[in-house]
Amino acid sequence: MIGEFASIDRLLGRLGAPGALAGVALGAGDDCAVLARAEWPVVCLDTLVEGVHWTPKLSAIDDVGYKLLACNLSDVAAMAAVPGPFLLALALPSPFDERFLDALSAGLVAARRDHGLDPEVVTAIGGDTTRANGAAVLSLVLFGRPLRSDRLLRRSGAIPGDGLWVSGPLGESAAALHLGQAGGAEEWAEPLLERHRRPRARLDLVPLLAATEGVHAAIDLSDGLAGDLAHLAQASGVSAELEAAALPMSPACRRAAALLGADPLSLALGGGEDFELLVAADQSAEADLAAAGFSRVGTLGSGPPGSLALCDASGRRGPLTVRGYEHG
Amino acid sequence: MIGEFASIDRLLGRLGAPGALAGVALGAGDDCAVLARAEWPVVCLDTLVEGVHWTPKLSAIDDVGYKLLACNLSDVAAMAAVPGPFLLALALPSPFDERFLDALSAGLVAARRDHGLDPEVVTAIGGDTTRANGAAVLSLVLFGRPLRSDRLLRRSGAIPGDGLWVSGPLGESAAALHLGQAGGAEEWAEPLLERHRRPRARLDLVPLLAATEGVHAAIDLSDGLAGDLAHLAQASGVSAELEAAALPMSPACRRAAALLGADPLSLALGGGEDFELLVAADQSAEADLAAAGFSRVGTLGSGPPGSLALCDASGRRGPLTVRGYEHG
Repeated sequence: MIGEFASIDRLLGRLGAPGALAGVALGAGDDCAVLARAEWPVVCLDTLVEGVHWTPKLSAIDDVGYKLLACNLSDVAAMAAVPGPFLLALALPSPFDERFLDALSAGLVAARRDHGLDPEVVTAIGGDTTRANGAAVLSLVLFGRPLRSDRLLRRSGAIPGDGLWVSGPLGESAAALHLGQAGGAEEWAEPLLERHRRPRARLDLVPLLAATEGVHAAIDLSDGLAGDLAHLAQASGVSAELEAAALPMSPACRRAAALLGADPLSLALGGGEDFELLVAADQSAEADLAAAGFSRVGTLGSGPPGSLALCDASGRRGPLTVRGYEHG
Repeated sequence: MIGEFASIDRLLGRLGAPGALAGVALGAGDDCAVLARAEWPVVCLDTLVEGVHWTPKLSAIDDVGYKLLACNLSDVAAMAAVPGPFLLALALPSPFDERFLDALSAGLVAARRDHGLDPEVVTAIGGDTTRANGAAVLSLVLFGRPLRSDRLLRRSGAIPGDGLWVSGPLGESAAALHLGQAGGAEEWAEPLLERHRRPRARLDLVPLLAATEGVHAAIDLSDGLAGDLAHLAQASGVSAELEAAALPMSPACRRAAALLGADPLSLALGGGEDFELLVAADQSAEADLAAAGFSRVGTLGSGPPGSLALCDASGRRGPLTVRGYEHG
């Protein structure tokens, strides 16, 4: 067991850049971290709670560290931005437990490596560790900057007529969570579980999003397609219609749904933490999006802002009632 | 009870500026908040945990909101900086409890008002609310900027020979906590309790710190004088000696110590959350510091870096063994 000050130093020592860093005038070790001018205008903040966002049964602490960075990277990717330095706020039942801190920082380091990020750039510049009174609560503040300084991709830029595209298969993290809770996941389910434990943010798509003017809006899929689409449609003042048959799902996810007696469509629409991207784009972007692996899943319209509809596999159209997955 | 998305919107709606804000290109309502270039280079992060940093017996939720902003304002003040926009990360047992959210935002608003801050500037630009699995955990990320762009007051600028000064009475918050836990605090103790519940950050001293070149280093007193002095001395590579008789304590605090059978010196050295400022300054700053209500409490030397000594009331000198108050 180590002291409070040693505890955050230990973490920052593993995650912080050793020397001076472009864009950061002052890192860990003072009351505040100081950003140099004009470098990291984007900032986001995500929190993971033990027993809410992860269960020790399915995720080791290094997995949790991985996910803590990945979920913030996903927010930055959805702005067509690239990540920079970060701060940590950790409330821990045993804040001075080196093994926990080492595992957590190992997971953060692994996420940084797996996303191909420079440790001198995506580096801890500060943070706060304190004792939790109950389950662990982990927050990370991540800075970033638009890859193209004149192009920031918001939720609110979509227009009626835009196509809706998702960057990869849906429902896998939720399927893994349900499988894991049911116990006895088999080898075929391992890729799903891995995706739940160590989600990959779609930073690889940032250059495409930054370069493709026909992409008008984006949001990352953290709460589930239905919920995140509602956010995008509301912010843009448009209606939306999804095609059930077009929602990308993997064979493993369908198999998990069958095993669990779950409706695959519910997993795809309501399952959170896929960390794929949902974008709204006009026709000029279609070829580029398709070539990058996006699937077209629907269309935006000029109906009541934020209203969602679903066309089922037989072509019947009805209001979309499945809500996004809300933690809590 | 309200939904997750409504919950953070509710909070941000009360705390966020209604219109466009200089320095913030994009506030709440998207994946990230975006800072405009060159406006808010300072950032800090503090967390309060129920049962660790506050007890419901002594502090109402609005008091906790007050303290959440004040403890971050104190960090910014210690850099000779002024506060700007902020983000919130809240893990709450009942995240959708409007009364809790309303009380919390009322406390934040009260702190902003009591510190004379402009709600269009010190404004929530984002955040995250989630369900806690246990006690509430509240984090706030605060941005700021140096009042003088060429002068950032760090912990590490102190030199041997500098005087040590504190901006106000010590030990009051800790005395109040002990009194409150013992139960039955009387009217004379009310100012102590109020200081514990609603600490005032010393933003009023920022113009002095920014203008006075003879002030070389500063830190805010959040962990207790002994602990925070150790941080400053270590960061500056100097030793320090405190004069016990010079430590400012109020009559009410001494009375509380007597009632509790506590050593007043222990409260002054080890009691956390005074949120006064500790500065190191040369002779040229003495008159200005004294005029602003600072008390000189010791001197820095060229002994082993970080080593602390105490001169007691009878003039005996010994190593300072009282550790700063460490939560947890």
